[in-house]
Amino acid sequence: MVSFESDYIAGAHPEILKSLQETNLISLSGYGTDIYTSRAKEKILKSCALAEGDVEFLVGGTQTNAVVISTMLSDHEGVLAAATGHISTHEAGAIEYTGHKVLTLPQENGKMIPDSLKKYLADFYADGNHEHMVFPGMVYLSHPTEYGTLYSRQELEAISAICREYGIPLYLDGARLGYGLMSHGSDLSLPDIARLCDVFYIGGTKVGALCGEAVVFTRGNKPRHFLTSIKKRGALLAKGRLLGVQFDALFTDDLYFRISRHAIDMADRLKDIFETAGIPLLLASPTNQQFPILENTFLERLKEHVAFSFWEKYDDTHTVVRFATSWSTTEEDMDALEEALKKISGKY
Amino acid sequence: MVSFESDYIAGAHPEILKSLQETNLISLSGYGTDIYTSRAKEKILKSCALAEGDVEFLVGGTQTNAVVISTMLSDHEGVLAAATGHISTHEAGAIEYTGHKVLTLPQENGKMIPDSLKKYLADFYADGNHEHMVFPGMVYLSHPTEYGTLYSRQELEAISAICREYGIPLYLDGARLGYGLMSHGSDLSLPDIARLCDVFYIGGTKVGALCGEAVVFTRGNKPRHFLTSIKKRGALLAKGRLLGVQFDALFTDDLYFRISRHAIDMADRLKDIFETAGIPLLLASPTNQQFPILENTFLERLKEHVAFSFWEKYDDTHTVVRFATSWSTTEEDMDALEEALKKISGKY
Amino acid sequence: MVSFESDYIAGAHPEILKSLQETNLISLSGYGTDIYTSRAKEKILKSCALAEGDVEFLVGGTQTNAVVISTMLSDHEGVLAAATGHISTHEAGAIEYTGHKVLTLPQENGKMIPDSLKKYLADFYADGNHEHMVFPGMVYLSHPTEYGTLYSRQELEAISAICREYGIPLYLDGARLGYGLMSHGSDLSLPDIARLCDVFYIGGTKVGALCGEAVVFTRGNKPRHFLTSIKKRGALLAKGRLLGVQFDALFTDDLYFRISRHAIDMADRLKDIFETAGIPLLLASPTNQQFPILENTFLERLKEHVAFSFWEKYDDTHTVVRFATSWSTTEEDMDALEEALKKISGKY
Amino acid sequence: MVSFESDYIAGAHPEILKSLQETNLISLSGYGTDIYTSRAKEKILKSCALAEGDVEFLVGGTQTNAVVISTMLSDHEGVLAAATGHISTHEAGAIEYTGHKVLTLPQENGKMIPDSLKKYLADFYADGNHEHMVFPGMVYLSHPTEYGTLYSRQELEAISAICREYGIPLYLDGARLGYGLMSHGSDLSLPDIARLCDVFYIGGTKVGALCGEAVVFTRGNKPRHFLTSIKKRGALLAKGRLLGVQFDALFTDDLYFRISRHAIDMADRLKDIFETAGIPLLLASPTNQQFPILENTFLERLKEHVAFSFWEKYDDTHTVVRFATSWSTTEEDMDALEEALKKISGKY
Repeated sequence: MVSFESDYIAGAHPEILKSLQETNLISLSGYGTDIYTSRAKEKILKSCALAEGDVEFLVGGTQTNAVVISTMLSDHEGVLAAATGHISTHEAGAIEYTGHKVLTLPQENGKMIPDSLKKYLADFYADGNHEHMVFPGMVYLSHPTEYGTLYSRQELEAISAICREYGIPLYLDGARLGYGLMSHGSDLSLPDIARLCDVFYIGGTKVGALCGEAVVFTRGNKPRHFLTSIKKRGALLAKGRLLGVQFDALFTDDLYFRISRHAIDMADRLKDIFETAGIPLLLASPTNQQFPILENTFLERLKEHVAFSFWEKYDDTHTVVRFATSWSTTEEDMDALEEALKKISGKY
Repeated sequence: MVSFESDYIAGAHPEILKSLQETNLISLSGYGTDIYTSRAKEKILKSCALAEGDVEFLVGGTQTNAVVISTMLSDHEGVLAAATGHISTHEAGAIEYTGHKVLTLPQENGKMIPDSLKKYLADFYADGNHEHMVFPGMVYLSHPTEYGTLYSRQELEAISAICREYGIPLYLDGARLGYGLMSHGSDLSLPDIARLCDVFYIGGTKVGALCGEAVVFTRGNKPRHFLTSIKKRGALLAKGRLLGVQFDALFTDDLYFRISRHAIDMADRLKDIFETAGIPLLLASPTNQQFPILENTFLERLKEHVAFSFWEKYDDTHTVVRFATSWSTTEEDMDALEEALKKISGKY
Repeated sequence: MVSFESDYIAGAHPEILKSLQETNLISLSGYGTDIYTSRAKEKILKSCALAEGDVEFLVGGTQTNAVVISTMLSDHEGVLAAATGHISTHEAGAIEYTGHKVLTLPQENGKMIPDSLKKYLADFYADGNHEHMVFPGMVYLSHPTEYGTLYSRQELEAISAICREYGIPLYLDGARLGYGLMSHGSDLSLPDIARLCDVFYIGGTKVGALCGEAVVFTRGNKPRHFLTSIKKRGALLAKGRLLGVQFDALFTDDLYFRISRHAIDMADRLKDIFETAGIPLLLASPTNQQFPILENTFLERLKEHVAFSFWEKYDDTHTVVRFATSWSTTEEDMDALEEALKKISGKY
Repeated sequence: MVSFESDYIAGAHPEILKSLQETNLISLSGYGTDIYTSRAKEKILKSCALAEGDVEFLVGGTQTNAVVISTMLSDHEGVLAAATGHISTHEAGAIEYTGHKVLTLPQENGKMIPDSLKKYLADFYADGNHEHMVFPGMVYLSHPTEYGTLYSRQELEAISAICREYGIPLYLDGARLGYGLMSHGSDLSLPDIARLCDVFYIGGTKVGALCGEAVVFTRGNKPRHFLTSIKKRGALLAKGRLLGVQFDALFTDDLYFRISRHAIDMADRLKDIFETAGIPLLLASPTNQQFPILENTFLERLKEHVAFSFWEKYDDTHTVVRFATSWSTTEEDMDALEEALKKISGKY
């Protein structure tokens, strides 16, 4: 059955798999000390236009959030996130497991509002009793957000400026960063993100890799003995090459951006198909995730033809679902969806 | 350069890579809900001759130890390990990071001694003040041990009996389990281990996989909501297929055992080569890791021809090093080593 | 200067201090194994009309919350609290430090709303993806709340019924429980609370003791090896007598209730004084904490005569402050306040 | 019955209780912001001859160890202690609960051996693979040790020099510091300790207080936002005065030293009594704890007359027990012990 269930329904992009195969028999030292890992780091820094940055590879998104946040916060600090932020809601309490609180702020279409952040920080330090409270020690954004939406350059600049005013790092969760960068709706480049954030990660798992996320520390701010902290959290791969080779491939010949652009193109067609079918979208997502609102019996019938994800209840008779595109989405998948929608609507 | 540095110097065994390739484009749901993962679980349980067991896949060894130990211990408990146990020494404090103490016992060639364990437990409960002490809540063994040595069936039965007498689970770290099972020196089968342990893992990373360890709960004792606990520790892969497909391949046509047997054969030749060269071994390891004691200038010269690992200082003029074999070790590698040794010894 | 800054501005109630003095030279074993501790436990259980309950003493409120919550939650669970709950806001992340999330619900005058709780739980289990989320594993209420308000018997019964329906314990933070029990506005007795909650604590620090909180497990549900868990959290007193003797005194001749009643009487007069002075209260608190809204210049002048606490900004020209009464509040304090208000208002 | 069970069998020294009583009705702000707390800090710094030190009060010993160690270690570090150190054995895993490992070194009569420490650190940094190990980030000593023994000035200077060479703080657990300082066998003054250690605590609970330990940071090295970290660990007292008033009394008119000296005098008589009775001591303890080796039937008979603590099994027919003296030990207690020993030995 054709599936739009997520952007991680297939294995690796063929170019990545080819790299894994070509390098498979080469003897390499473990734990990320190999040449492919070094090469991948260099290519990423170059893409970010960073002179003094550092890159480290981790396996998955929740792990990356937990490792980065817990090694960068001080004991008395927590991390600020939008109420819908992934770390607030769908990581099973992974941040709290490291002993730190996620402090939530109101959100709009999945985004933190610069003014809310400013007010929170101003109020926190205005209150004389804040020593009994968790200090705001970092700002976490996801970009694209959990709703597929994007920060504009102006918004990111505003948030970055507030963070710098208060001396707290800005961390951007880029699990789907490629889709944000390649979106028609975005005015933010990778160097922009590297310039405005103190640390961020470039997601691999959801952009063509088998697994892997690349953490970028933009200003010589990698925590001391970070490798030991990674090991301590059970996040160090013996065969570090698995991450190095994949990211080396992703940042060769713009593969990361080609993958992302393809998914965006497919998402554009997806939006057209839903519009044509008269199916409303929850919000205008400019990236690879789309959130149609389906009438419940329609939904049940569509499920017989196409796979997608439950997102949230809309009202008593409607449900929000998620359709995602990726490198593996094809025009044939689109045709099949179109046909299924027509069939159910009785257009055939 | 020929390398015996570790058993994770190469990528995946070709049969595994082939499986990854063949399944690459198939659409599968995430987080281990796919058919390959289910199939791998069934095959493993069958190999273990377990009727009511459970299998879960994790990414690496330290992660597996931390997840299993921290979810199975009660709040007031710690885990007993030999002083040389991996969790005691080389995991950067990953167990302590979960809030639990590693309680150490004396070791002999890397093994816990059944009588030491018995005495520890008897003394603990004899002492009226033990409520201020960490309760022994689990026994951790590595098999093969960090020194390549193996528990005999009699020893494992003795330890298992003690654990059951005191009602604490026996956990076996099988990062290199295959090499133990295929060793000529072993009288323990996989079903024996499944029968005697409460939980153990079958190592993939060091036995031919790119990554992955299979945790086996042998008696319906998988912690409740284990998936959520895995997620909470940042250890859940979105593309769970990466683990499922690999273990499905490893447990098809006895690949896991063939890989292990090959490495044992290579290790046998390794021992012969060292014996012929008059190089003593630290101890008689019946598995894929060998620990020659090299004179320091000899070591420096050998390093120019062959890669291996530093293990520990032996005395002022000698050093213990580690040579490991794996699926990727070839007869040509052996010839090259033999030649290098002869060259340095001036035998040519 | 007369002070209404908090209910912990004085030392211990004289009857408590007398008990400490009278027992001071008696040789007693440590860690809560003494006769006064046992006696205090019995008296408390009797006051609660509990047959099979357990009582344990801890030192302070945040410590008690952290110990109780972290030992009763399972690994995959968090605790539900009103957004204004003390554990959500003013305990510096003490719950998160134990690795568990505080899940927040909307509040009304500091209280959790039974319907919000019901909806949260129903929605949680309706959503098929909840395995990536923190499970609701306990409900936390403070009574009186941080705003001095109280749950009615009907409300507590509703919340208790929901908790039992979902099989999660109800925990009540009674840092100021006495003031709730003795309030004219309350229809809840101590046995009611014991019957409806699974665990709760009777606050000592804010009701006349130097320190100390009595945790009551109402249904044989004290965590196993709780003493070791207390020790592990650095919360075990060597001289356990300090808590036992104080609670023995508090539950002798109804001292706990007399102290609380006195503070309520003083709070009644406080409300009269503010009403007479035309100063509005933020909300109708039926307990020992009152929250007048002061015009800012008036506030500055009042501070020269009387001590009180900053609570929160009301608007640009007004501030909410907190006045608290306790066993040590006297009629003379009231007269002084009355006089100060008159003086500032120019009534003299 | 006469008791030598511990040095915390009585309440507070009468001068401390008097201070609590005299200050009881004075209105004071909470959380350690009161005048008695400030005064106690000043007096302690003066006693330590410290110009730029900081003092903070905590409630008990295990809590103090956990708070100090966990706030001063970096993420990748653990704390080095003698194998018999209190944090290694009798604190229920309180340090591990904070996510840090206790690294143990051999001991001699309860003391860490400077050469063992030196060798451990040299070996650690010599080993190229130490990034997978817990870094030694602090040295923990107890003084007096758990066996009542003391470091000489020379030994403490040696350990301090090693710590400074490696740039790791030296922390001294002074739960019974007074008894060390007043011992005839000690050549270390309080200013010596302040000069040689980076942080240490002056124990109150076991030296006359109801509870309380004074942490001294000797070189402007108090962790930032330490109050919030204390609160986060549930270790902040609302009525901070309870600690301030007691330490103010302890450091007025040399009370802390008078209490300690009295206990040492009593311990001297204790040693005489055991010598006269022909009862051997496990080791020569120069402080207030003595460890006689009793024949088991003798022990049972003695228990009918005098209370003491079990320490450890000596051999099949003998047991080591602990006798402790304190401010509350009297000459009459000694007479009673003497008489009991004579009676059992059949000398009457």
